[in-house]
Amino acid sequence: MKLQRPGRLSRPPHPVLFELLYEPHFLEQRRHALPELLRIDAAHVVMLAEAALLPLAVAAELLAENRELAARSEAGEPVLAPPASHRGLYLVYERHLIDRLGAKVGGAAHLARSRNDLNAAITRMRLRRELIDLLNDDLALLGTTAALAAAQRDTLMCSFTHLQPAQPSSFGHYLTAVLCELTRSAEWLAGSLGLVNASPLGAAAGAGTSLHIDRGQVARLLGFRRVLANAADAVASRDYAVHVLAGLAMAGTTLSRLAVDLQGWASHAYGFLGWPDDLVSTSSIMPQKRNAFVLENIRGQAVQAAGALVCSLTGLKNTPFGNSVEVSSEVTAHLWPALAATSRALRLMRLLLAEVVVHRERMRAFTATGQVTMSALADLLATRHQLPFRTAHEAVAHLAQELGEGAMPAAGVVLPRLQRILATLCSPPPALEEAELAAALDPDTCMRAARYGGGPAPAAVQEQLRALGRRRRRLRARVQGAQEMLRLADRRLAAAVAAVRGRQRAAG
Amino acid sequence: MKLQRPGRLSRPPHPVLFELLYEPHFLEQRRHALPELLRIDAAHVVMLAEAALLPLAVAAELLAENRELAARSEAGEPVLAPPASHRGLYLVYERHLIDRLGAKVGGAAHLARSRNDLNAAITRMRLRRELIDLLNDDLALLGTTAALAAAQRDTLMCSFTHLQPAQPSSFGHYLTAVLCELTRSAEWLAGSLGLVNASPLGAAAGAGTSLHIDRGQVARLLGFRRVLANAADAVASRDYAVHVLAGLAMAGTTLSRLAVDLQGWASHAYGFLGWPDDLVSTSSIMPQKRNAFVLENIRGQAVQAAGALVCSLTGLKNTPFGNSVEVSSEVTAHLWPALAATSRALRLMRLLLAEVVVHRERMRAFTATGQVTMSALADLLATRHQLPFRTAHEAVAHLAQELGEGAMPAAGVVLPRLQRILATLCSPPPALEEAELAAALDPDTCMRAARYGGGPAPAAVQEQLRALGRRRRRLRARVQGAQEMLRLADRRLAAAVAAVRGRQRAAG
Amino acid sequence: MKLQRPGRLSRPPHPVLFELLYEPHFLEQRRHALPELLRIDAAHVVMLAEAALLPLAVAAELLAENRELAARSEAGEPVLAPPASHRGLYLVYERHLIDRLGAKVGGAAHLARSRNDLNAAITRMRLRRELIDLLNDDLALLGTTAALAAAQRDTLMCSFTHLQPAQPSSFGHYLTAVLCELTRSAEWLAGSLGLVNASPLGAAAGAGTSLHIDRGQVARLLGFRRVLANAADAVASRDYAVHVLAGLAMAGTTLSRLAVDLQGWASHAYGFLGWPDDLVSTSSIMPQKRNAFVLENIRGQAVQAAGALVCSLTGLKNTPFGNSVEVSSEVTAHLWPALAATSRALRLMRLLLAEVVVHRERMRAFTATGQVTMSALADLLATRHQLPFRTAHEAVAHLAQELGEGAMPAAGVVLPRLQRILATLCSPPPALEEAELAAALDPDTCMRAARYGGGPAPAAVQEQLRALGRRRRRLRARVQGAQEMLRLADRRLAAAVAAVRGRQRAAG
Amino acid sequence: MKLQRPGRLSRPPHPVLFELLYEPHFLEQRRHALPELLRIDAAHVVMLAEAALLPLAVAAELLAENRELAARSEAGEPVLAPPASHRGLYLVYERHLIDRLGAKVGGAAHLARSRNDLNAAITRMRLRRELIDLLNDDLALLGTTAALAAAQRDTLMCSFTHLQPAQPSSFGHYLTAVLCELTRSAEWLAGSLGLVNASPLGAAAGAGTSLHIDRGQVARLLGFRRVLANAADAVASRDYAVHVLAGLAMAGTTLSRLAVDLQGWASHAYGFLGWPDDLVSTSSIMPQKRNAFVLENIRGQAVQAAGALVCSLTGLKNTPFGNSVEVSSEVTAHLWPALAATSRALRLMRLLLAEVVVHRERMRAFTATGQVTMSALADLLATRHQLPFRTAHEAVAHLAQELGEGAMPAAGVVLPRLQRILATLCSPPPALEEAELAAALDPDTCMRAARYGGGPAPAAVQEQLRALGRRRRRLRARVQGAQEMLRLADRRLAAAVAAVRGRQRAAG
Repeated sequence: MKLQRPGRLSRPPHPVLFELLYEPHFLEQRRHALPELLRIDAAHVVMLAEAALLPLAVAAELLAENRELAARSEAGEPVLAPPASHRGLYLVYERHLIDRLGAKVGGAAHLARSRNDLNAAITRMRLRRELIDLLNDDLALLGTTAALAAAQRDTLMCSFTHLQPAQPSSFGHYLTAVLCELTRSAEWLAGSLGLVNASPLGAAAGAGTSLHIDRGQVARLLGFRRVLANAADAVASRDYAVHVLAGLAMAGTTLSRLAVDLQGWASHAYGFLGWPDDLVSTSSIMPQKRNAFVLENIRGQAVQAAGALVCSLTGLKNTPFGNSVEVSSEVTAHLWPALAATSRALRLMRLLLAEVVVHRERMRAFTATGQVTMSALADLLATRHQLPFRTAHEAVAHLAQELGEGAMPAAGVVLPRLQRILATLCSPPPALEEAELAAALDPDTCMRAARYGGGPAPAAVQEQLRALGRRRRRLRARVQGAQEMLRLADRRLAAAVAAVRGRQRAAG
Repeated sequence: MKLQRPGRLSRPPHPVLFELLYEPHFLEQRRHALPELLRIDAAHVVMLAEAALLPLAVAAELLAENRELAARSEAGEPVLAPPASHRGLYLVYERHLIDRLGAKVGGAAHLARSRNDLNAAITRMRLRRELIDLLNDDLALLGTTAALAAAQRDTLMCSFTHLQPAQPSSFGHYLTAVLCELTRSAEWLAGSLGLVNASPLGAAAGAGTSLHIDRGQVARLLGFRRVLANAADAVASRDYAVHVLAGLAMAGTTLSRLAVDLQGWASHAYGFLGWPDDLVSTSSIMPQKRNAFVLENIRGQAVQAAGALVCSLTGLKNTPFGNSVEVSSEVTAHLWPALAATSRALRLMRLLLAEVVVHRERMRAFTATGQVTMSALADLLATRHQLPFRTAHEAVAHLAQELGEGAMPAAGVVLPRLQRILATLCSPPPALEEAELAAALDPDTCMRAARYGGGPAPAAVQEQLRALGRRRRRLRARVQGAQEMLRLADRRLAAAVAAVRGRQRAAG
Repeated sequence: MKLQRPGRLSRPPHPVLFELLYEPHFLEQRRHALPELLRIDAAHVVMLAEAALLPLAVAAELLAENRELAARSEAGEPVLAPPASHRGLYLVYERHLIDRLGAKVGGAAHLARSRNDLNAAITRMRLRRELIDLLNDDLALLGTTAALAAAQRDTLMCSFTHLQPAQPSSFGHYLTAVLCELTRSAEWLAGSLGLVNASPLGAAAGAGTSLHIDRGQVARLLGFRRVLANAADAVASRDYAVHVLAGLAMAGTTLSRLAVDLQGWASHAYGFLGWPDDLVSTSSIMPQKRNAFVLENIRGQAVQAAGALVCSLTGLKNTPFGNSVEVSSEVTAHLWPALAATSRALRLMRLLLAEVVVHRERMRAFTATGQVTMSALADLLATRHQLPFRTAHEAVAHLAQELGEGAMPAAGVVLPRLQRILATLCSPPPALEEAELAAALDPDTCMRAARYGGGPAPAAVQEQLRALGRRRRRLRARVQGAQEMLRLADRRLAAAVAAVRGRQRAAG
Repeated sequence: MKLQRPGRLSRPPHPVLFELLYEPHFLEQRRHALPELLRIDAAHVVMLAEAALLPLAVAAELLAENRELAARSEAGEPVLAPPASHRGLYLVYERHLIDRLGAKVGGAAHLARSRNDLNAAITRMRLRRELIDLLNDDLALLGTTAALAAAQRDTLMCSFTHLQPAQPSSFGHYLTAVLCELTRSAEWLAGSLGLVNASPLGAAAGAGTSLHIDRGQVARLLGFRRVLANAADAVASRDYAVHVLAGLAMAGTTLSRLAVDLQGWASHAYGFLGWPDDLVSTSSIMPQKRNAFVLENIRGQAVQAAGALVCSLTGLKNTPFGNSVEVSSEVTAHLWPALAATSRALRLMRLLLAEVVVHRERMRAFTATGQVTMSALADLLATRHQLPFRTAHEAVAHLAQELGEGAMPAAGVVLPRLQRILATLCSPPPALEEAELAAALDPDTCMRAARYGGGPAPAAVQEQLRALGRRRRRLRARVQGAQEMLRLADRRLAAAVAAVRGRQRAAG
């Protein structure tokens, strides 16, 4: 097992190290890192051959073995059996090459590279794929939310501030508001993709190389958008992890807020919302129960990115600005569970929004009892009857206090009481008409009138949704563009490999 | 004190509330929020007048008082004395207007607005200013770092991985790497500015209004770049706080890494760096001490944004997506100390980089003892003498082990030992020449040869710095553009106020 | 200004350092640190004199000046004017001594000590006082909660799980549950006090001393419970900060949960709770509003300790285990705002619980509609009529579904429907009596019957509260004991100072 | 699959819920939760039988099946095959009982219990076992650290403050300091065990029960130390998770500090420490490398608890104080990976301390060049020659500056230079003898003289270690006591089960 004692080291890793550090990650690495490592290795060998840094024959042999492994790995075959002891995937791979192709060929490709830039590249390649998947989950949620918001744009529901009924609004208006914030975090994460998709390859151990390599070619063959200009930055920096995790944490935070509102409105006290049996749970002891428990799972999953963010910030704090395991492996390990948890939260929320049953009549009935048109009444006094707003507000406050809880009486009942209050505050008091009072007291009329200031009038909400739709389409185009770029790079890599092997056959 | 019992409330706030919630913030609010409130109020009144929602005469009176307060406040006068009890700055301001102009005029402006959108706007306006200030501190640091990196681009220093000497590099190459990450976080924060600078005004309590207001005009008069389309989003969302704080936390994390390296290199064991007496401390008990303690303050200040970020994420978690004190006041309160701490860290680091004394000879001497040219030697064997890299690596590893610690012997001494090792690994062994060996063993030669892969060759570093300089200039232009936009808006607002007052004088 | 250039340093601190690091803290230090520094200095000088390490005459002069400063400082006089430039409180104090007493006396006391152990001691002394204050706020909240729980122990209210009505319980039972968790965090923080109150003095710069000092005597004169055995630990460790902040964060988390429930129950949808006008707010635009906004402030304040905890953990991470500013000053700086915020949250919550108005009839009415006695009905079938519980549960689930929402019909109406369902599930079906059914369906009867398993039966709650009361008394005794210990130490110190001065007068 | 549609629900869980929420946890639950569930179920059935709440025959049948499953599960057999769809482990288990024993028996045991208290109990039971395992790892580290500290207590090494050489000390003194902090966090976690090991059983859904159960008996059969008095607290609170995670985070923080120092001292610049080949790594590109990379893994693992702590605090924030998935499942899910990561960090650190090679001569040589005896020299002037300490400090500072870097000259060379400096500061200057000067300048002599204030004199360190040893033994006794208590409970449970089955056989 010579290679497991590479260079100066006379012994394989201590059994405890192997048990705690190497063994537990091998299978996950083989699944997630190996396909990217094989891509990188192929692109690197192609480039070395074209730069005349590696003999064509050696390159062709390496590429043949590489592509065979890639094909078998893609087919789900468990290539690269882990030895009894080892020091990680890369060295197992190189050992495999030497075993298969001999030391002369198998050990020839490690020019102008190091595990430092390899690992940096693998992490970025895995992350860009997982981020694209997550953005697709996110886009699905955005689409479902937008559709529901549009469908509910004239479903009367009061708005709430400080948990208290505030003003006439609609369920669609509320959903559109949440959609605004969700759209922004999706845009944030799409921006992260740009940070992530840059190539560290060629940086080697962090000090570059004196060999005349072509970093741009390698980057193109692997679908990277650019090359990281400074070699030490390329191996030492993981700031993109913080950018991604903070974006995920923000998305999760919005989901937690949405989930809290939905669960409240689905509870017995409100009864606004419900779900079919396959989306609720009951109790093993309380037979009457229908719990919207999935909203609690969503919140639980959604906070995981916040913890991972703290791990990454704490993990990076006070580390030397150079390559280290603490930065390269430990910090980035927090990305995967956070992506998975956020993806679960996004998918669960999409499902709940797709299947929600809206009890409009309950929303309407609740809205009728909350005195939510008092602002509209004050507006009426201020704009049609020229009271200063503060005086109008005070008059209506007295009225609200007098009326107390319960359903709003008819305009004909309210009118004389209001006039009496107005008479104590201004002289002469304005003379209201019953019709205008009735209009001001009707929540539905008020909701439809709120056309300005980003209000809930259905046409206004429609307009807000239209603009969000345009942003969503741009976002989708970006994500699809990124996916396409990876597909294209794979084709480009295949062609480049074929070209090298072809040249060798022609030469041979 | 009628207004302190607004609307339905018959009593001023409980003394404990006043002591704990209202009183402590009044002076800070008057200093930081009042100037923005006065701008907003003026823009709002101008708009109401032009939309014929407020009589011209009322508007003119309100604007006269507003501008007088603004002028006195700008002159540093402590306008708006706090009453014995109150419920916050806005109500004290409105009370002041009513006291001065009478209820008819003083209470007239609160149309189509609420403390919800006012506070949302004030926070964004304060934040955009403080963010601009911070970005200017950040740009100053970037500039100083770039200048130092350029000046030190041929100062030989080995790179380090896992704290061990790695390869020949330069102090300038290291600084350029750090500059890359610092530039990215500055770009992140400049992006935050775009998120922050959007107007919530017109959203009122979160459900918009039926009054035909002109949100765009108000936004233009206040220097906002756009209007937030949905009223509930406008008052409920504070995701920009997370975006800003995460960007600050990232910048702080990079500073902590830089500070750790600098302090290590300034310590007795390395002696690479030093500072003049006015930037170090001694000990009250150990007379020999010269401590680069400021780097510890930098690290301490730099982590504050991470804590504030956690406060903001935790603070937002599970809150209703609507207006609440928990979101609007409590979450955003974490921004200001985090901005101040990060600004301190940036300024202190800039100062240290501006004043650092670099002991090049110590760097060079240290580099000579670390066997840092072993990769170059392996490269030589691989590329000029056609050994597979892995075999070359193994040969050099044996050599390194034989040579042991201490300064590298001359090429003439190394040559026969290496040949002997090579003979055990390949037959026939390659025949090295002393001159090429000497070149490979010389750290300075190696550093200058590392022209590829983002390496430290001085011309390569120069090129890296040139690209970073372009990004820095774009960043500076963005920040200056934002500043200019605010100045322009102030002029626009002054003109609009003058126009209303002029029309009133013409009409009167 | 000789002392500002102590030892090797030829210059005062750089103006930027002075502006950012020294000047901003001086006034706070003078207020919070100086009183403790003066105590420490007095105890140290007494000990040095008794150990014959300082001439009696010198000690007496130093103590005279020290006690005069202490008296003036306690009287609120701003002693120790800050010079134009300085390097922190301790050096300003020593400079003052030298100016007043001459170099021979004023500079004599700094034997076997360093700013490292001095600062470590000052932080612990300030913290133990603030922690005692906070525990007193906490005890006040515990007492108020216990009193309210006792008063509400037969106020019928359903319990909730997943936000849905669950089973008959009482408001007092709920409050007792919260009180359990609050009691545990108070006990945690009382435990922190034990960690904090240990003396680092004598550790000097972290390597102790060869002078035969008496650490135990100094600790006794200052009210410390023990001495930290290892000098390096004494100056390097700040783990107690994490212990305190985590305890505060836990207390705050419980408050956030209580606040969420209270706000929900005070909202229009429930109407269970209310507060007088001086504890709610209204809206500047919505005249009907009565917002229990203080609960939002409580939640906002309560999360601050979580952020400070992250600051302290991140701040300590990867710091050398030795004295540094990063650890000694920066990490502990997060304690004070977190203590203040948590104290605010505790005081506000106590106030709200003391003043809450409980609408029992609303709780009772709500409970009547939630089918919350369905478990009791299943229990009846299982225990009196020998159905397996799972079958009983299924029968009752069908019943609940049939009955649908709204108030529970009378037992006479329910009986035949239940019998019909039972007939489909078991043969022969059990024969229920109307009376036992009526008892099972009555929430109040059920609540009073739940005497086991920690249930809400009033006598059971009384017993739970009695046990909590015992713990609360033990806690109060601990806190008072700690306070008394500090008072005693001050008297002991005064006596020891008097003794030294007396001996000097006798000798002189 | 009737039971998968328990009670009111007509359908199995939605496939997406099953995929994301139920399926992924089943195997882990079966491994970690099932053994505890079987214990709980057995104890509960025993208690129900003895309380005459369950017929003896039914109880005996249930216990027979339970014990058989327990035996097979303990033997590693995969009992309870997961159905194609299900709603979690408990319902699968109950379904299994009904399938095997019929509805009459299999569905009979769910009296006076709920998944709420069952899950609460399972989590506490799993946690107490994992915490005991972790404490054993922790104790092993404490023991190894103590042994190394004792062995190195006269290994001269300077102390460091601000990364600079400070005073003569020993490697053993340093390790003892770290051991103090590590011992405190171990004691913290042992305290957590007391919080964790309390029984929620009997609380049922959080409102207790009207059935006359015996909670104390169940607790005794399961090895709980006490019963949680309030049912709502029993199901709603998870504060112990915060207590555990904060303790783990603190332990991890100390490890990170120790790891930073060790890695620094093992680096080329210091060369104080080393490890055998099987504990270091080399580089795939840099043949000279020997990296103490395990210290970076330790730091990376050690911060995970900090992130989990944030998850738990954020997860609990603003949740209702009642049972919810968000609290019961989601928050506690963060415990297990944090325990595993901390355990890895503890084990790795123990291994490194057990195998470290200490280069005493390098420590001694470094110490000789750092002017670390300057405080001792100032002490000499102050205590033997009656200079005020501040003056002595100033004189020595001048000397240090004059001498500059490098090895300290002999006392005979230093003496005249010091006398000259003293002559400028005091008249008459004290007359030093060469011998006393030589003693003050010798680091080893100084280290051995530092017997006071917790200093490094070997006998003093021995004494510190003796006291720590006593605490470690108490800690070990606590942990072993807890383990023994669990073994005892298992025996007690087996006996109680046998008794019930025996009584049934006797009766049958």
